[in-house]
Amino acid sequence: MGFNAKEYLESVSIDCVVFGFHNNQLKVLLLKMKYTQEWSLPGGFVKLSETVEDAATRILRERTSLTDIFLKQFRVFSDPERSKMNPALKDLIELGDQPDLDWFAKRFISVGLYALVDFTKVIAVPDNFSDYAGWKNLDEIGNLMLDHSLIVQKALNTLRLQISYQPIGYNLLPEKFTMPELQALYETLLGKTLDRRNFQRKILSFDILNKLPETKKGGAHKAPFLYEFNLENYKKALENGLTGGW
Amino acid sequence: MGFNAKEYLESVSIDCVVFGFHNNQLKVLLLKMKYTQEWSLPGGFVKLSETVEDAATRILRERTSLTDIFLKQFRVFSDPERSKMNPALKDLIELGDQPDLDWFAKRFISVGLYALVDFTKVIAVPDNFSDYAGWKNLDEIGNLMLDHSLIVQKALNTLRLQISYQPIGYNLLPEKFTMPELQALYETLLGKTLDRRNFQRKILSFDILNKLPETKKGGAHKAPFLYEFNLENYKKALENGLTGGW
Repeated sequence: MGFNAKEYLESVSIDCVVFGFHNNQLKVLLLKMKYTQEWSLPGGFVKLSETVEDAATRILRERTSLTDIFLKQFRVFSDPERSKMNPALKDLIELGDQPDLDWFAKRFISVGLYALVDFTKVIAVPDNFSDYAGWKNLDEIGNLMLDHSLIVQKALNTLRLQISYQPIGYNLLPEKFTMPELQALYETLLGKTLDRRNFQRKILSFDILNKLPETKKGGAHKAPFLYEFNLENYKKALENGLTGGW
Repeated sequence: MGFNAKEYLESVSIDCVVFGFHNNQLKVLLLKMKYTQEWSLPGGFVKLSETVEDAATRILRERTSLTDIFLKQFRVFSDPERSKMNPALKDLIELGDQPDLDWFAKRFISVGLYALVDFTKVIAVPDNFSDYAGWKNLDEIGNLMLDHSLIVQKALNTLRLQISYQPIGYNLLPEKFTMPELQALYETLLGKTLDRRNFQRKILSFDILNKLPETKKGGAHKAPFLYEFNLENYKKALENGLTGGW
């Protein structure tokens, strides 16, 4: 399974910020690099036959075992200094592969994509350069390899801006969820606590939720009602914005 | 002034959708290619020392004579077939330059950036591959070179989605403008007419305008009041969304 640089587009890499949500925590999928022990985002390169989205889908299928992933490009990272110290080079040498070292040594720009996945369905698998793949809570990520901390920050900023005008939660939450779970997702993304009654009033006013006739069993307290997204209205709100637009 | 491929990042180009607004019309800056006579977006390549934004700023300074341009990347165009018929190759040969033809013949992905400029301040200048640069009204653009029509369409979609949650107009309108001029900008972007009184009520409710004590002279009808953007509130709305967020 050697890496053949000739199959890939030069100068372009992709990095994926995979978000999952579990136990009221927003989590990011990370890989632990061999040798350097640095944490990195899942990523890779674009085959000559692929779009950027094709490449990300292929790479995330390998890293998450998911075949149908919601992903979206959000920004190109093109600081000329960003890839000067590419650790992949060192690792490849030690792995005994025979890559085109010139290819790796050149400058790369990276296309950032974010993905929203159902945490419970992911089976994380490391790549050739890493020996561990798994989730970290957003507030426990620390410093990542290269400019990957910046890439996570920009992905978060994108989501934060979007939830002021678009719905979020589908792909991230289980099919049925409680109002406190949805509120916890918003609070994590916004980085602040929200008033319970105001949140409920506002989110219901967008008409994107169906209240189900069931409650969530198993808690110590009064069982909270379950909701699901009204997908038709959800999609309309994605297109036109939550306020209905102009 | 030969083109030296060694100075540029491989596989990556940039294309700029420059929007201007004049006489209640949204306009796009286009170049007419030598030989093929096709219309194209201003664009170019990224020098090894540049970010994508640096490159776009340099290229648009040459094409528009403006030194301080508001621009923003909005999407990467990465269809593997998009640059197969790169006319730049043919043109360069005929221009008598000695480019690295292999460099141009390879696949390129293109980073799309949109720019919002004050129409009245632009002096349009063609590049080496074109013999005319100028504005076309949005509805008169027709078919552009390569996938440039798609790039314009996606830039417009980006602006359309944004005006449901962010203010727009600064950079595009003159410093002082009338309510009908602002409404015309929104109508052009949305591709539909808006009710005058509803528009005025809604835009004023966002608190991003200062009404000036002057009126616009020179029309046949009653002189309309002039407005300017309240920049402090405008910037706040850019960050938090028009509805104030969560």
